[in-house]
Amino acid sequence: MKKLFAEFFGTFWLVFGGCGSAVFAAGYPELGIGFVGVALAFGLTVLTMAYAVGHISGGHFNPAVSFGLWAGGKFDAKDLLGYILAQLTGAITAAGVLYLIVTNKSDFITVGGFAANGYGDLSPDGYSMTAALIAEFLLTAFFLLIILGSTNDRAPKGFAPIAIGLGLTLIHLISIPITNTSVNPARSTSQALFAEGAFISQLWLFWIAPIAGAIVAGFIHKALFDKE
Amino acid sequence: MKKLFAEFFGTFWLVFGGCGSAVFAAGYPELGIGFVGVALAFGLTVLTMAYAVGHISGGHFNPAVSFGLWAGGKFDAKDLLGYILAQLTGAITAAGVLYLIVTNKSDFITVGGFAANGYGDLSPDGYSMTAALIAEFLLTAFFLLIILGSTNDRAPKGFAPIAIGLGLTLIHLISIPITNTSVNPARSTSQALFAEGAFISQLWLFWIAPIAGAIVAGFIHKALFDKE
Amino acid sequence: MKKLFAEFFGTFWLVFGGCGSAVFAAGYPELGIGFVGVALAFGLTVLTMAYAVGHISGGHFNPAVSFGLWAGGKFDAKDLLGYILAQLTGAITAAGVLYLIVTNKSDFITVGGFAANGYGDLSPDGYSMTAALIAEFLLTAFFLLIILGSTNDRAPKGFAPIAIGLGLTLIHLISIPITNTSVNPARSTSQALFAEGAFISQLWLFWIAPIAGAIVAGFIHKALFDKE
Amino acid sequence: MKKLFAEFFGTFWLVFGGCGSAVFAAGYPELGIGFVGVALAFGLTVLTMAYAVGHISGGHFNPAVSFGLWAGGKFDAKDLLGYILAQLTGAITAAGVLYLIVTNKSDFITVGGFAANGYGDLSPDGYSMTAALIAEFLLTAFFLLIILGSTNDRAPKGFAPIAIGLGLTLIHLISIPITNTSVNPARSTSQALFAEGAFISQLWLFWIAPIAGAIVAGFIHKALFDKE
Repeated sequence: MKKLFAEFFGTFWLVFGGCGSAVFAAGYPELGIGFVGVALAFGLTVLTMAYAVGHISGGHFNPAVSFGLWAGGKFDAKDLLGYILAQLTGAITAAGVLYLIVTNKSDFITVGGFAANGYGDLSPDGYSMTAALIAEFLLTAFFLLIILGSTNDRAPKGFAPIAIGLGLTLIHLISIPITNTSVNPARSTSQALFAEGAFISQLWLFWIAPIAGAIVAGFIHKALFDKE
Repeated sequence: MKKLFAEFFGTFWLVFGGCGSAVFAAGYPELGIGFVGVALAFGLTVLTMAYAVGHISGGHFNPAVSFGLWAGGKFDAKDLLGYILAQLTGAITAAGVLYLIVTNKSDFITVGGFAANGYGDLSPDGYSMTAALIAEFLLTAFFLLIILGSTNDRAPKGFAPIAIGLGLTLIHLISIPITNTSVNPARSTSQALFAEGAFISQLWLFWIAPIAGAIVAGFIHKALFDKE
Repeated sequence: MKKLFAEFFGTFWLVFGGCGSAVFAAGYPELGIGFVGVALAFGLTVLTMAYAVGHISGGHFNPAVSFGLWAGGKFDAKDLLGYILAQLTGAITAAGVLYLIVTNKSDFITVGGFAANGYGDLSPDGYSMTAALIAEFLLTAFFLLIILGSTNDRAPKGFAPIAIGLGLTLIHLISIPITNTSVNPARSTSQALFAEGAFISQLWLFWIAPIAGAIVAGFIHKALFDKE
Repeated sequence: MKKLFAEFFGTFWLVFGGCGSAVFAAGYPELGIGFVGVALAFGLTVLTMAYAVGHISGGHFNPAVSFGLWAGGKFDAKDLLGYILAQLTGAITAAGVLYLIVTNKSDFITVGGFAANGYGDLSPDGYSMTAALIAEFLLTAFFLLIILGSTNDRAPKGFAPIAIGLGLTLIHLISIPITNTSVNPARSTSQALFAEGAFISQLWLFWIAPIAGAIVAGFIHKALFDKE
């Protein structure tokens, strides 16, 4: 039960901090944080909560990560459903609070894209569905290689949250223009529920591609890099 | 007594570095550091002083943190007053030195907002009092979850200042447009004393919301995540 | 064999993440990540994969690093060829995937410079061949001094990926305007193959200067700083 | 002797990387790294070389640091002169190489300010001599508190280069607009020798203020924060 609370708080923080920084601060005139700031924010949500509650739940905060750790032999299939429900609950609660804050702005008109993920017409820079599939698959696969590798027994102890958190920052530095960067079905779902636009109709891609990439990476890690 | 000096120097540095970077460097034409730079600066004041004097005083540098650690069972109530006075003294001294430097600029006219915290008309991007209350409460609560979690016995040793410092960076990446980001009543007080504008009349929010968030997080951590 | 897979994945990630961030996100209007974001991305590819697979292959991801470690007495000459082939394969595969993604953009016309390295007319800011030779030689030499020093027995344990990764970030902060920053012949080769322009005719410099700098640094480290 | 080579290489890197990033990359149109990038670069020069050669020489790379460590009881007075000469030699050599590179740019006309430090007319944002004295004194004092505190026996082991390097980043985030940030007489001297303008006539301040701040901090640390 403590684990599910840890996943709830961690995923809340990921969405509140990552998507919140995008919604509130990315495009602020002159001084805004831009994609660099948003990338840093996403990564730091994971870095901070992995140090804070990683020793309790493992610090997944992401259904694709839970699937990938299962494929890599580090997470029990029977815990998958509970973790994913806790992650979704945390993500959607965070999106609700973000909505509450943004509608309390003096010049509020619409939430717009609300940091939701999309491809084609909903891609920030006009990338196709194919490009989005490749990018989300590959980036989540490498995210899992980083997670499984840096938490391996032979890796230096204690540093994994830095590698994993800054890995998520890196992933955002690469791919915000492509899909607004998901690699996390919970984060895609929560934002699609509140965003203006047909983001819900594209949600399937942000479940399938990240989870597929994560599972493939889990198998690769087990076959190639895990202890003999 | 050493502890109070550590808190004095640490809070001086937090205000001098965090608010100083905002006042001197955020809006410099073309090359200015913007909100990303200010967010980084605030976080690094805490990261650096937590490594430097954290082993002496615990490295609070913030009355809300002291309250939250008390609620989490990690800080003695009888030390609260001394810590808070040392923090306020450090913050106000730093704001005074910032004032001295900024008035020694060739084209000085007014200190303006002086990196003070506000809501409504005094919010950088026009967020209401309700938005400010929610944001300051929640962000300080997560700040304390990070502090209490990353300093827990079961968390990796030595990394807490990284998690806590970069956690404060993250909090600023999210919320500078909302309230100019407080989560720290000492930092709000010192800037309000020197700023032009009715910032003092809004100070109550930047004491109540952060301290309430911190105390709630302290209780949550003790109930859910601390060792049984 | 595991080592070669680790080098393949690591160098894929370096090119996909570093060059990908440059191609997709550097010049995005208003919110783009600029050279700071690209510099951070390159460094984080190495930081993350060094924690993930550094304990398997040593985490070179760069022919110049392999040569420098050989000169420093930390890598066996008989492994050089295999490592370099794995690195080149990883880099070229990554460039191919980047090409696939970028051509799936709605307004795609040409890949342009594709983050390739150049001097003279192909230098981002018009630096001559001499400037490029000096910069690439010196920066790779210091990169190797950082690698050899931070992985030395007497350096703090576990921190080397941070020093090395952020060292590569620093190198990019300095020299993107000069040569688009190589210090890595594999990364230069993969991009030159796909870029529009005479980048292939300049590839010699981005093999010779980094490898020469790395070898000199290897000898300096062995002579001056390695354990007696 | 190894120690002096370590100080030579470290200070070379500090000037080449920190001032080099400012000269080459800060003001690049649209994509330039600005003050945030320069601040990051200065900090990373120290972070990287402190991990690389800190275990050899202590990693000062700065005459003010050597004086401050002496005042704090951590460095022998008889080594001061050798260290400072090695630091100056490294800094001036680096400035010479920067000059060589920048003059090999196709549209080179003048080195301009060359990242030199100044006050009054030579302050980037018009701060007076008084402001410069206060800022350089205080910032160097806190730099030494960070160095002495984070390398103290009771601080977490191995993290000091992170605290110190990012502390230098923070110092630049605050004060580039004031004096272009020195806190390091060697770095001020090397740039003043090559810059266009009366920077040499202002060098006295960038020796006196940082060294005075460092010495005061050394005494404060010894009196208040050193072991029992």
